Formats: sequence, structure tokens, C-alpha cells
Amino acid sequence: MSSKGTKRTGSIAAAKSPDVVVVGSVAIDVLHTPTVEGKVVLGGSAFHFANAASRFASVDIVGAVGDDYPFEQAEFLRKRGVDFQGVEVKPGTTFLWEGRYHEGFRTRETIRTELGVFEHFSPKLPEHFRAPEILFLAAIEPRLQLDVLKQVKRPKLVAIDTFQLWIDIARQDFMQVLKQVDLLFVDEFEARWLTDETALVPAAKKLLTFGPKWVIVKKGEHGSFLVGPDGIFMAQTYPLDEVVDPTGAGDSYAGALLGYLAACNSISNTNMRRGMEWASVIGSFYVQGFGPDGLKDRPRAELIARHRALQTMTRVP
Amino acid sequence: MSSKGTKRTGSIAAAKSPDVVVVGSVAIDVLHTPTVEGKVVLGGSAFHFANAASRFASVDIVGAVGDDYPFEQAEFLRKRGVDFQGVEVKPGTTFLWEGRYHEGFRTRETIRTELGVFEHFSPKLPEHFRAPEILFLAAIEPRLQLDVLKQVKRPKLVAIDTFQLWIDIARQDFMQVLKQVDLLFVDEFEARWLTDETALVPAAKKLLTFGPKWVIVKKGEHGSFLVGPDGIFMAQTYPLDEVVDPTGAGDSYAGALLGYLAACNSISNTNMRRGMEWASVIGSFYVQGFGPDGLKDRPRAELIARHRALQTMTRVP
Repeated sequence: MSSKGTKRTGSIAAAKSPDVVVVGSVAIDVLHTPTVEGKVVLGGSAFHFANAASRFASVDIVGAVGDDYPFEQAEFLRKRGVDFQGVEVKPGTTFLWEGRYHEGFRTRETIRTELGVFEHFSPKLPEHFRAPEILFLAAIEPRLQLDVLKQVKRPKLVAIDTFQLWIDIARQDFMQVLKQVDLLFVDEFEARWLTDETALVPAAKKLLTFGPKWVIVKKGEHGSFLVGPDGIFMAQTYPLDEVVDPTGAGDSYAGALLGYLAACNSISNTNMRRGMEWASVIGSFYVQGFGPDGLKDRPRAELIARHRALQTMTRVP
Repeated sequence: MSSKGTKRTGSIAAAKSPDVVVVGSVAIDVLHTPTVEGKVVLGGSAFHFANAASRFASVDIVGAVGDDYPFEQAEFLRKRGVDFQGVEVKPGTTFLWEGRYHEGFRTRETIRTELGVFEHFSPKLPEHFRAPEILFLAAIEPRLQLDVLKQVKRPKLVAIDTFQLWIDIARQDFMQVLKQVDLLFVDEFEARWLTDETALVPAAKKLLTFGPKWVIVKKGEHGSFLVGPDGIFMAQTYPLDEVVDPTGAGDSYAGALLGYLAACNSISNTNMRRGMEWASVIGSFYVQGFGPDGLKDRPRAELIARHRALQTMTRVP
């Protein structure tokens, strides 16, 4: 992470442009899994992303919460340097998602979605957020993603995540966003559904024709792969004996990769591959706890040890 | 592959002990896929195994066919040095399997199984087959696998494949076989089903406690992994845009790995990993044609080029 000299107005910390800005949801989740009923945790894609990315680089969040948001529980992120000045606090309630994961975590159902103040979320980037190295647009309405793109000085890398609902509702806007981004994250279902292809590699290659330079297809326990100007790279998922809560796994994957890239000098093919390896490691910690807890207090030495273990499991001498 | 001086009675070729002996089915398959109806091809697990293994080492087949077997169609294997002297020709019909693959090749149904002379198959190894470097027992009745083990001088490596039906019918015999083998191949369903574990790594580790030194779990398009004394190794499947016929993919995978190992000086962790990489390459060619055709006339240069491509897709500098 590079330290820059620009002044940050209203900030006590040493002023500088952020490495990574993430725009997305900051929420409260109520989880039902095979082991708990109605567990309340911090959630939201921008929150999970920031939790992972801040292990590698400085991160600023843009979002909106209600006046009920328990900021004290997010204090651990502030301590790790995450800037919450872009999180607008509005009168009302914080976005709440309640869901149930079934045995084996292959399927989940939404019990309740209460948008609260997030319903009228209109991202406004603080002045000192407008020149990030990397911008991540989490799965929000494509119209809002376009809006954010107008507010920033072109970053080195713009990445987006998506969500079937938004594409259904606003496909034209989504295609417009795709033309302006460098890296698209999709899961295997979205990849097939966006392209009408059955096989994943042709699907990913077709997505490249929509605009992005790189596409990463996430296949959960079956790994992930990248397509881009340097061909295909296939990454393994770190194997776990047990999953506690998969919420946030995809966001933490994106966060780790983009945080890693922000910490590198250049966005090269080699760095993308190394970053995906780290993303797999961080994602595996993520699913070992509820909400952010799988990664939250994990010592750096444990992250490094698992990274080595993954390398040992995948290298062919 | 090492050349040995032992005389091979009744063989025109230079006499020597084989690198690999495979015991299993030699069959006729009638295939129904999304692109063909009732296509008749050569099949059987020992046949597919030999097709792959003979790209790396000398292979001898032990099996039984009826007097209707079209040996002239298997001539390409003989030319590549595969010894058919262990294939007994009996009055009657060859084992016939007719099956249908559904769209996407995720499921298949058996339309017809006519065992023919294979019903009373009792493997008898010719004298010059009895000291192989590597022995592969394809998915036949465990009682027959035990019988073969009594006929050979302990090879460097004994590997077996299995099949849910045989485990259902003869679980005790199967457990007996497991105690005498070095390497077990299973698919993900068999791994779960044999161990009552949901996650695949714990399942594979439990299988190790049944006897084998190594277990390889095959996950189709999602790759394969090895557990053994040197921990876990995860291999990728070479990605294809299209599958023509998956019959024989698993047998060709085992054949390529064991053929590769036979061609190496030692059965080390490094050679296992390299062999699994080659197995992925050979398996990917296999599913690109009907029956043996995906690999049959494939020039060596193409195999090498795809191996390099797979390495490029999986290496992290």
C-alpha cells in the first residue's frame, strides 16, 4: 500500500487517498443454519468486502445505515484503518436480511428482506474517496453503479459484482456498467444465465465481449477461474472439513483479491493469480465463522500458514 | 519403461515382463447421447484403461470376450504394444452395455446390460503377466480382485477402481481387497457413500484407514484430489467447451496415471502429482470422442501441447 500526501478533511488520521473504495450494502443479518437459529450478525456486501480487503490495504466504505446501526461492533474494522466516513447515517432502520441455509449449505432461502434506509441509497463519495487505486462496486442497482463511476477519477481497476435480481430488473443499465469495468465477478449460475452457455469457459469468454478485461467465475467449493488477455487461470478452493456460515464468502473473496492487488505495484497476470490464491485462503476462513467472525480476529500468522498449505496442496514440482 | 530379459512364451515381440497389467471388462457399448442414437463402439474398463496407459508404458490386458468380439477394431492397441494374450475368447457373446446420457452429461441411464461370457469371468493370468510393475484391478467383483492378487508376485503398486454395485453385493470382500491395495480410485459419490461423510476430504481420509496408502477422489469437471502420506494434492480438470461422450473417462484417467507412474523410476509424491496432471490431460481427450476415439489417433504432439496448456492455466509464478 502506497502512502500519499493529500489532505483528508475532517479525518484525524494521516490524510491520504484510499487504496480501495467499496460501494455497497452495510447490513444486519439474521442467520439460520444447521447449528444456530436467528443469530444476529453484522453483514452487507461492502462490510464483508472491507473486512477482507483491509487485511491487505486501506479501504473506504460507501453505504448507508439507519440510526440503529451498532457502530461499536464494527470498531474492529475502524481499528484496522477502514474509513466509514462514506457510510451515511439516516433516520430509520438498517438494511436487514434474514435467511436460512439448509443442510450441506447448497441452498438458502430468504425469510425476510427489510431494505430500511438502503431503499433510497444514493451513493455520495466524500471528496477524499474520489481517487482510489481500485474501486469495487458491490451488487447494488446498476443505475447506482453508473452514478458512482461518474464521481471518481478513473481508478487503476474498477471491479463489480452482480446479483441476478438487479440484472433482471435493469439489464440495460447493467450492460452499460459492464462497458466501463475492468473486472467482473460472477458465480457459475450467473455466468450461465447471462450468456445462455452451458459450459463455463465459453460463458466467461462471452462475458468478456460485453466489456470487461477480466472475468472471474466463482464455483464455491469447486474453485474459481479467471479469463482475460492472458488466457485462463484456474484456482482451487482451500478444502474445509466443515462450513459454519457461507454468508459473505463471495464478498470476502473479492475483497482479498482487490486488497492484494492494491498492495501490489501493478495489476499483472502474475499478481491476479497470486491474489486469487489469497482470495481462496481468506474465503475459507470466512465461512468458518458467523458473519465476519471467521476472519475477524484471525492472526496474520494463521493466514500465512494456510496460504502455504494451499500452495503445498496445489503445486506440481 | 524398463526392458527386462524374461522370455515371453508364445509371443513374437521381444519378451519381457509388462509394466502394467489391467484386469477388467472388455466390452461392446451402445451409446445414446444428445448427438447420436445407438452408436456401437468398443468399451469396457480394461479396454479404456489400456488405451490410455499404453501411451506411457507397456500394458497387458486380462479379460474375457465372446467369439463375436471384433478384434480387428482393437488392432490399434496391439500396434501400440498392448498384449491381449490374457483376454480369453469363449463361445458366446461379449459383455454389452447400452446406455443413454442426458443433456449436459450429468446423468446417465442403463438401457441394457448383457453380461454374456463375462458372467462367468474368472481371471487367469498368463505366466508372463505375473510380475507386473503395476497392477490395476478395474471395477469387477471383489472376489475376483482377491483372486488376481493371489496370482501375482507383489507389484510395486496395486491400484483398484470400484463400483457401487459390487460394494453393495460384496462389501466384506471389498474391505478385504482394500487391505491389500496401495491406491484406491473413487468418485465423489462413492467416497461419501462408503464413509457416511459429507465433506470429501474427511471422506477420503477415512478411506485411508481401510487400508490403501493413497486415495484419489475423482470429481469429473471439478478436478480430482489425492490424499496420502504426503497430505493432499488437488488437480484441475482440463476445461472443455464441449463433451462428446464421457464413457471411459474414469478408466482413462486411471490408465494415464498408472502408465505415467510405470514410466517413472519411482512412485514418489512428485510423480503422483505429475501423473495426475497427465491423467487430467488424457481424460479430457477421452471425452472428446465416442468410445476410445477421443484418444485413439491423437498425435503425441497434441498431448504434449495440452499438457503445457494445463500447466499454464494452473501455475502461480
